[in-house]
Amino acid sequence: MNKINIGLIGFGTVGSGVVEFLHTKKSYIANKYNTEFTVKTVCDLYITPDKVKKFGKIKTTKKYQEILEDPEIDVVVELIGGLHPAKEIVFGSLNNGKDVVTANKALISHHGKELFELAQQNGLRLFFESAVMAGVPTIKTVTEGIIGNEFNGIYGILNGTCNYILTQMSDNNCSFPDALKKAQEKGYAEADPTLDISGGDTAHKLLIMAYLAFGKFIKFNEIYTEGISQISQNDIEYAERLGLTIKLLAIAKKVNNTIEARVHPTLIPKEHPLASINSVFNGMLLDSDMLGKVLLSGEGAGKMAAASGVVSDLINLAHNPAQPILSNLTYENKALTVKKIDDVISKFYLRLLAVNKPGVLSKITGILGKHDISINSVTQKEQDAKSPVPVIMLTDSTSERNMRNALKEIEKMAVIKSKPVAIRMETLQ
Amino acid sequence: MNKINIGLIGFGTVGSGVVEFLHTKKSYIANKYNTEFTVKTVCDLYITPDKVKKFGKIKTTKKYQEILEDPEIDVVVELIGGLHPAKEIVFGSLNNGKDVVTANKALISHHGKELFELAQQNGLRLFFESAVMAGVPTIKTVTEGIIGNEFNGIYGILNGTCNYILTQMSDNNCSFPDALKKAQEKGYAEADPTLDISGGDTAHKLLIMAYLAFGKFIKFNEIYTEGISQISQNDIEYAERLGLTIKLLAIAKKVNNTIEARVHPTLIPKEHPLASINSVFNGMLLDSDMLGKVLLSGEGAGKMAAASGVVSDLINLAHNPAQPILSNLTYENKALTVKKIDDVISKFYLRLLAVNKPGVLSKITGILGKHDISINSVTQKEQDAKSPVPVIMLTDSTSERNMRNALKEIEKMAVIKSKPVAIRMETLQ
Repeated sequence: MNKINIGLIGFGTVGSGVVEFLHTKKSYIANKYNTEFTVKTVCDLYITPDKVKKFGKIKTTKKYQEILEDPEIDVVVELIGGLHPAKEIVFGSLNNGKDVVTANKALISHHGKELFELAQQNGLRLFFESAVMAGVPTIKTVTEGIIGNEFNGIYGILNGTCNYILTQMSDNNCSFPDALKKAQEKGYAEADPTLDISGGDTAHKLLIMAYLAFGKFIKFNEIYTEGISQISQNDIEYAERLGLTIKLLAIAKKVNNTIEARVHPTLIPKEHPLASINSVFNGMLLDSDMLGKVLLSGEGAGKMAAASGVVSDLINLAHNPAQPILSNLTYENKALTVKKIDDVISKFYLRLLAVNKPGVLSKITGILGKHDISINSVTQKEQDAKSPVPVIMLTDSTSERNMRNALKEIEKMAVIKSKPVAIRMETLQ
Repeated sequence: MNKINIGLIGFGTVGSGVVEFLHTKKSYIANKYNTEFTVKTVCDLYITPDKVKKFGKIKTTKKYQEILEDPEIDVVVELIGGLHPAKEIVFGSLNNGKDVVTANKALISHHGKELFELAQQNGLRLFFESAVMAGVPTIKTVTEGIIGNEFNGIYGILNGTCNYILTQMSDNNCSFPDALKKAQEKGYAEADPTLDISGGDTAHKLLIMAYLAFGKFIKFNEIYTEGISQISQNDIEYAERLGLTIKLLAIAKKVNNTIEARVHPTLIPKEHPLASINSVFNGMLLDSDMLGKVLLSGEGAGKMAAASGVVSDLINLAHNPAQPILSNLTYENKALTVKKIDDVISKFYLRLLAVNKPGVLSKITGILGKHDISINSVTQKEQDAKSPVPVIMLTDSTSERNMRNALKEIEKMAVIKSKPVAIRMETLQ
């Protein structure tokens, strides 16, 4: 029987889930994987012995250094999130000869490269399956499942809060504020939901996936990020009639030697499997050169879903003690450069509120044409003839630069009565 | 640089795909995975040196023993399919100290357990990712991705030929024979399509997944298997109106200490992500106790999709030379017994062709009631009043035994004008 001692730092939702998982499944894991895990010490600023006593004899501490310096601890599980002191904990653990399992997407997206290199130098492992889509094995799929392939693109629904809100708006016809409130009531959104709804959390996850898939370490500020708070019920309804669905999509694409990475609300065809990933579920479409398109989906958050990824990492670590850190974790494609958002090409959905009189449409299409933007279809919503009417346009492919310049001009027109809404489209073909 | 010599047996579609893949991606694989693969020898009954010459200096032979006995060959890649001589090749390779990669679902489903044990005894590896869903990493997901979890069920669309035919029937409103003909024209079905459309191929794949997920080695004749040739356009159309889609589903479920395993056309809700896996794409839903439901989909057949799984296996073998065969491959849950099909519980869709006169419906529902089958809904299709009319019924959950007995009685009724059609339903909740 393989025996592994764990020091766990961060006893919040996921941390307590991991301890509960290992406790509940102790005999199953021992029988199937010939491994006995012991949580020796739990560290948390708010820990008290009575919080862990139902899980057996576990030492508690408020000082993470006790875990890092304990020679009996084999693996450090870091689940406090954020950059500090998580960074100090993970670097410290690897420097003290301990393998590390973490679910910290901020840390891996900012310092992954250095950490993988340090682990490799020290002959240790650093696993982080739960950093993206919780226990759904996205990291393993990209690093070990689909290998030998080169990736053309990654398209992910990576934030359960945003996907829940958009699904609510679509299925129950409610407004963004109402859907957000419902998400908070159900525990799917934090009291301060900024990091989720701004797209920041999704961007962290995209950085990790882009590094693993393309070997390019992109910085957080090189990703164009737009959240979902500007999406209205109208847009969802018009999209629906056009056979489209709005998702907050994380997109990374490689074309020749450039890579584009962006996070924004995106219209996708309703019949595409990604479009049916609803509520708190996450999904990822991986487009690879030999295998083609592979879709993975599942619960991307929640106590046991996240704990499950951490436990998988622990069993994989224990199960294969001789495994080095995968060399492809430190692989870099130095030829790749990050494409500027201005040069990114998309099709767009535009919603304008325009005064309903002859010649207005022709002026708008004139401005678009001047900026080299072709129109694919125009729908003018019938309403009371005296009020301004919504005009919905689908464009052909154009650059962000052209679109931004055209919208600036259109916005200034006297006949345009509110800020134009532009949503990018992806055919996913 | 890690150097691995390969002996490849079976130079058909997948075999030539593997050689082409390794040749095309030689420098990418060497850079990223620090490994150089050399295909030293190719064996095939119909091989000639000119078939491989564009891929470099490869020896050809018609005798597989030459590969098994070559001390320079590290890994044997078996791609001939079927049981013989594949069985002799794989046992022989493992007995001669060679790791093995195979895509042979028949072999693994029949002899997997013995082979995994032999590999373990000899300190060798046996990888077989392409045996299920080609290069889509289903095997890796179940054996390494979602671990520590116990599975409640597996639901798979595992045969591209059948899924293509059902999608054609649904989207283009064509008959089964027409859809099959189109599949053959496109190269998606063999000249003799029996193994695919009978469900036999799907059953092989289900046996493998059930063994890996539940630790129970089920025999081929313990799986209830029903193919798709009885599905009519009418069923697809009626299902559509009920918000349902027909898929050939492989199902394995564990309830307490019993396991049920079956392959048959199945009605699933149209809005479920599995329902939007169409054409030659495959999909698998894994229901696990901690992580919940995970969906995987992608191309389940085709030259490069299958080659991709073989190459992934090769890189994983080479990348981690110290890895033992996973102990969970030899794990058995001895408490599990296979549930007899008679005891399996499902909801059913029934289509009857009945004479249109008062009292008929009451007689039919009377027979169902006698066999303890409750009706959830009944729809009688309006037609010319003089001809027999189709009656569509959805039942509540009932056993196969009850349904079979009820249908025997119904079939004998004078007012029933054709053999009743019964299709099982799964809510996938």
